[in-house]
Amino acid sequence: MLAIGLSAMTAYTIPDMQRSAGIWLAACLWACLAYFAIESAVRARLAMQSGGAKSYLLSGYGIVDLVGIFAVPIGLLCGLDSPTAWLWASLWILKLAQISPGFAQLGRVFVLEAKPLASVFAVFLIILFLSSAVMFLAERGQQPNAFGSLPEALWWAVVTLTTTGYGDKVPITQLGRLVSGVVMIGGIATFGLCTGIIATGFAAETRRRNFLQTWDLVSKVPFFQSLDPSAITEITHMLRRLEVPERTAIIRRGKVGDCMYFIAAGEVQVDVKPEPVRLGAGTFFGELALLGDSVRTANVTTTMPSTLLILDLADFRTLTAHHPDLKRAIDAEGQRRMNENKQLREVPRSGAVPS
Amino acid sequence: MLAIGLSAMTAYTIPDMQRSAGIWLAACLWACLAYFAIESAVRARLAMQSGGAKSYLLSGYGIVDLVGIFAVPIGLLCGLDSPTAWLWASLWILKLAQISPGFAQLGRVFVLEAKPLASVFAVFLIILFLSSAVMFLAERGQQPNAFGSLPEALWWAVVTLTTTGYGDKVPITQLGRLVSGVVMIGGIATFGLCTGIIATGFAAETRRRNFLQTWDLVSKVPFFQSLDPSAITEITHMLRRLEVPERTAIIRRGKVGDCMYFIAAGEVQVDVKPEPVRLGAGTFFGELALLGDSVRTANVTTTMPSTLLILDLADFRTLTAHHPDLKRAIDAEGQRRMNENKQLREVPRSGAVPS
Amino acid sequence: MLAIGLSAMTAYTIPDMQRSAGIWLAACLWACLAYFAIESAVRARLAMQSGGAKSYLLSGYGIVDLVGIFAVPIGLLCGLDSPTAWLWASLWILKLAQISPGFAQLGRVFVLEAKPLASVFAVFLIILFLSSAVMFLAERGQQPNAFGSLPEALWWAVVTLTTTGYGDKVPITQLGRLVSGVVMIGGIATFGLCTGIIATGFAAETRRRNFLQTWDLVSKVPFFQSLDPSAITEITHMLRRLEVPERTAIIRRGKVGDCMYFIAAGEVQVDVKPEPVRLGAGTFFGELALLGDSVRTANVTTTMPSTLLILDLADFRTLTAHHPDLKRAIDAEGQRRMNENKQLREVPRSGAVPS
Amino acid sequence: MLAIGLSAMTAYTIPDMQRSAGIWLAACLWACLAYFAIESAVRARLAMQSGGAKSYLLSGYGIVDLVGIFAVPIGLLCGLDSPTAWLWASLWILKLAQISPGFAQLGRVFVLEAKPLASVFAVFLIILFLSSAVMFLAERGQQPNAFGSLPEALWWAVVTLTTTGYGDKVPITQLGRLVSGVVMIGGIATFGLCTGIIATGFAAETRRRNFLQTWDLVSKVPFFQSLDPSAITEITHMLRRLEVPERTAIIRRGKVGDCMYFIAAGEVQVDVKPEPVRLGAGTFFGELALLGDSVRTANVTTTMPSTLLILDLADFRTLTAHHPDLKRAIDAEGQRRMNENKQLREVPRSGAVPS
Repeated sequence: MLAIGLSAMTAYTIPDMQRSAGIWLAACLWACLAYFAIESAVRARLAMQSGGAKSYLLSGYGIVDLVGIFAVPIGLLCGLDSPTAWLWASLWILKLAQISPGFAQLGRVFVLEAKPLASVFAVFLIILFLSSAVMFLAERGQQPNAFGSLPEALWWAVVTLTTTGYGDKVPITQLGRLVSGVVMIGGIATFGLCTGIIATGFAAETRRRNFLQTWDLVSKVPFFQSLDPSAITEITHMLRRLEVPERTAIIRRGKVGDCMYFIAAGEVQVDVKPEPVRLGAGTFFGELALLGDSVRTANVTTTMPSTLLILDLADFRTLTAHHPDLKRAIDAEGQRRMNENKQLREVPRSGAVPS
Repeated sequence: MLAIGLSAMTAYTIPDMQRSAGIWLAACLWACLAYFAIESAVRARLAMQSGGAKSYLLSGYGIVDLVGIFAVPIGLLCGLDSPTAWLWASLWILKLAQISPGFAQLGRVFVLEAKPLASVFAVFLIILFLSSAVMFLAERGQQPNAFGSLPEALWWAVVTLTTTGYGDKVPITQLGRLVSGVVMIGGIATFGLCTGIIATGFAAETRRRNFLQTWDLVSKVPFFQSLDPSAITEITHMLRRLEVPERTAIIRRGKVGDCMYFIAAGEVQVDVKPEPVRLGAGTFFGELALLGDSVRTANVTTTMPSTLLILDLADFRTLTAHHPDLKRAIDAEGQRRMNENKQLREVPRSGAVPS
Repeated sequence: MLAIGLSAMTAYTIPDMQRSAGIWLAACLWACLAYFAIESAVRARLAMQSGGAKSYLLSGYGIVDLVGIFAVPIGLLCGLDSPTAWLWASLWILKLAQISPGFAQLGRVFVLEAKPLASVFAVFLIILFLSSAVMFLAERGQQPNAFGSLPEALWWAVVTLTTTGYGDKVPITQLGRLVSGVVMIGGIATFGLCTGIIATGFAAETRRRNFLQTWDLVSKVPFFQSLDPSAITEITHMLRRLEVPERTAIIRRGKVGDCMYFIAAGEVQVDVKPEPVRLGAGTFFGELALLGDSVRTANVTTTMPSTLLILDLADFRTLTAHHPDLKRAIDAEGQRRMNENKQLREVPRSGAVPS
Repeated sequence: MLAIGLSAMTAYTIPDMQRSAGIWLAACLWACLAYFAIESAVRARLAMQSGGAKSYLLSGYGIVDLVGIFAVPIGLLCGLDSPTAWLWASLWILKLAQISPGFAQLGRVFVLEAKPLASVFAVFLIILFLSSAVMFLAERGQQPNAFGSLPEALWWAVVTLTTTGYGDKVPITQLGRLVSGVVMIGGIATFGLCTGIIATGFAAETRRRNFLQTWDLVSKVPFFQSLDPSAITEITHMLRRLEVPERTAIIRRGKVGDCMYFIAAGEVQVDVKPEPVRLGAGTFFGELALLGDSVRTANVTTTMPSTLLILDLADFRTLTAHHPDLKRAIDAEGQRRMNENKQLREVPRSGAVPS
């Protein structure tokens, strides 16, 4: 719906389209607006029931919803012509921030790294200003049109320092070119600093976030309860969370497996013969591929929306090296399952769960 | 003031503005100059009282102050016309380096990584020179204007190697384009090296700086005194320093909390009923949200400028897993506070401090 | 063959070449096609013997092979003119993905980091849309040709946000330039985020992959069997795998050595006098340079394709510091070899293995 | 000399300069050539005495020297006109690789990361080829000059994929622009991968190199001999090497100190009253600032070229937390020095070494 709305709005600004199909595009835009209004109303009612109107309105969600609905009508009321008013519909793109996960994470990186990023921005401004002052002096004689005032030189400096390089203003004097070269190299260095800061912050934030998300789930898996707290911390850093919808294949028989799964919530079905087995929250599967040969021995699919914790082969080995008792417990369970599985093949009986 | 001064100076270089509002802009510039002169004089006097005139003049601060004050008047005395002389005011931008924090940190990264950065710069120069020599040979026949001499080719190489790409000189021969492609890919690699070096250095420097800043504060919190030195080192790496001005809300009741706070200096007020409680330096708060459910139970605001040490939820869990006694101590304190809190609700009495 | 085919195809699109040498190029292209068809047929037969036709066809390999063979003939049958149909041969470039190692690794990074990358892409789209809407408003009056509709403005925004900067559309109004500057800086930040995410993911993936590749090999070296599991995990993280073809020099006498080698599979020949010694899988060599002076004492070459595990000098020292018994074992073996070596120089006898 | 030579060569290619000052420039170039020839001859003789002519000639050094000397004369003999022959002098820039340190380090990163970089390059080529094929189809109708053949489209793709963006070829069709946008985003992703790989490799290589450089020096400092091997490994990772020339001030009295120094080789002089004290290899200084207040108490200068090992304050604290005996030893020495220092102020006697 978002894609349709934005496409229609974009098309509406093309004079040809407006003439030939303006009425249809406008209808489409009004339909989108109506859809968003209804969607927001539903969301607002839900939010008010749980939290109160004020907190909803002040949250990012509420503001984006409000702006999305009222910007265009207000524009039209203010007497803007139709295509210009509909331009406000470009604010609908902010709904992407509502949909896509991990916005909070990116934002946190910028907040935590605000100080060094501000320093880099200050360096950026200093290079910008000094270089454009020199450039103005060097080039105004030769190119009075391109470098006739400091704002013009500043524009050149921004374009150059970000290594965009439109080419609308190009230095031609020797001094100008020398300064230009320094600015470009400065641009690369600024770039590098920026990237370095963000990369450092992002790595720390990712680790932290993953730890927090996993911690609560780990505490729900009985298998981990017997471990001492330090081991739980270690395993929490290793596990990765995976949300799986209903009826999704997680393991396919015959594929090479390089991880095992703990079920934090939900249920999976293991397709063993003679009849499939169901595993609920707190159990694990997929460990056979890590213990013996690496080929999966059965299909595993979810029966309801589930949250799984993935333990990678590399981490599994590190972990079991540090905690031999954990390995022994998994080994025992795996052995038990394999035996049951063998028996079953001989004398079909109750459920068994290899994978 | 800095922004006003620089804007006025920028506007003063536009011929139109100069004609129509030159007198006002000049007045504004003189005012800024006067302001900076007075500010510098105050700072200089303070510096001289504490450290001595010489060290002030030789420090970055002193030089920036001096240049900011005297550059323009000297320019005017030397007979430059007014707008050109005021261009020197662009040096005021250097005051940004005085204001913004973390300049020392960025500088240290460049100093420590000077050797590998010099190597990258050497690679840069080698690619630059060799490619422009080849380019000069390849293109001078076809484009005698654009590639008529080696300096012209060098200019092209700088613009291309930094991936700026003005487009004022573009190779048209097959050989020239091949070399061009290699130079561009070389540019990306150089860029990558640069970024890699800076990112590596920055990560190390950030860790080091944070440790040093936090260490002194940690030693002032009595709660940590009982820990053995190795645990103090560990916790110091985890804490983050936060300077908070007076009367600032730190915790809001009902919000989800993901960190606890130690007060290194200052005082906070916890708004519990029947009457608020004040916590001074050396105490901690916000631990209830980490121990039980994650919702904050009271507002906390500073009563004076304070320095807090933040312990993140993820780090809190890792830490208490490694040091069970620390967890026990925090648990006990939290329990005590909750009990007191409950009692208070029944029989209003003296201060209690949930959060 | 791939290079020849693609060159011929490229040349075939140049009108001049087509006229003068069209027949030869077409012949060359048909030859390449035939070669690829035969190669694919061989591969397909092998795959079918081992795995079954279906899994081959569905694998990346099978699809690339099929597309490479049938795209051009189908194009010709559909009535496309010859050069246009041969353009489909550009799909041959996908064979590079079959040849080059590490594609799976890069792909895994993108899959694991899909969430944050999606967030960055959402940020990208939001900046793109909002900036082009503002730009359209700001510039359409002054430049009705360049910014006459929103798609035109979007094109400008993409070119600017990626810091490509063709210069075909350049803002000239003050507002346009201001927005432009913000977009460029936004571009750098997006870039930085992108790089930070990928760098973080890549570092984790590299570590994981190396661990898995090495683990299986380590378990085959008897020398490591005596270590406890935790030490094996540690050494596995340190070793680096190296595939060496037959008859390749690994160590050259007189060179400075900074690593030792464990033979996971294959055989090497150590050129000691009076007659060379052969070392098989499970043994190690090159340790003398790490223990005493750092100069290699003999040439070592492979006699068959071998898999070596490299232990770097820095890691060797860390490892032996943590596991003194490991150092003692290597010391003993080294001593034994040196003694044998000395004896041999006096009384030529059976094989000895210095390096 | 290198700078002069290259400048002269560059100037020699400018037609104006050649006419007016050609004779002087040629003289200057011949002088440089003579200088390099003599320098190389000296170096070659030294190398031959130590290693043998063959290894010198095959080393990077020898080849660069030879090329630098013979390229221009051979060019002249082959009948090239003078400015063109002198262009070969641009190979002199390779001498930078001889001078600048850390080239080996950068090279090693590329060698170790060769596999993933090759994969990225393959991705680069795949995007390049496919996008230029699509572009050729999309744009050849509208712009037969700019996109008339596949090589032209390939040139556009290189310029776009590296985000250089000359603007000499710009897509104008809708499809072309869409593909263009994808290519630009692909360029950013490729860039990010490249940077990520290099950053990961560089971080590992830096750590490794620093460890190796420091290890040998650490083993020479008697103070560290008493530590167990695992502690030596830890401290080796923390120390940073510093080469200091003769008569250089290392510590200035009154400055804030954040590191201590171990002398691996050389000698320093501590300016304490009544007479300075000299400290030789194996001793340490600067520890007082880390133990008590952070202000340096005496000037320290080198008396000969020295190699120092720097222990940062943050690392000092971590280290002493892990190894209390180390702290005790440094404490004792510091105490002894302070006492001696006090005594000396009362009764001038033999040398004492505060800092």
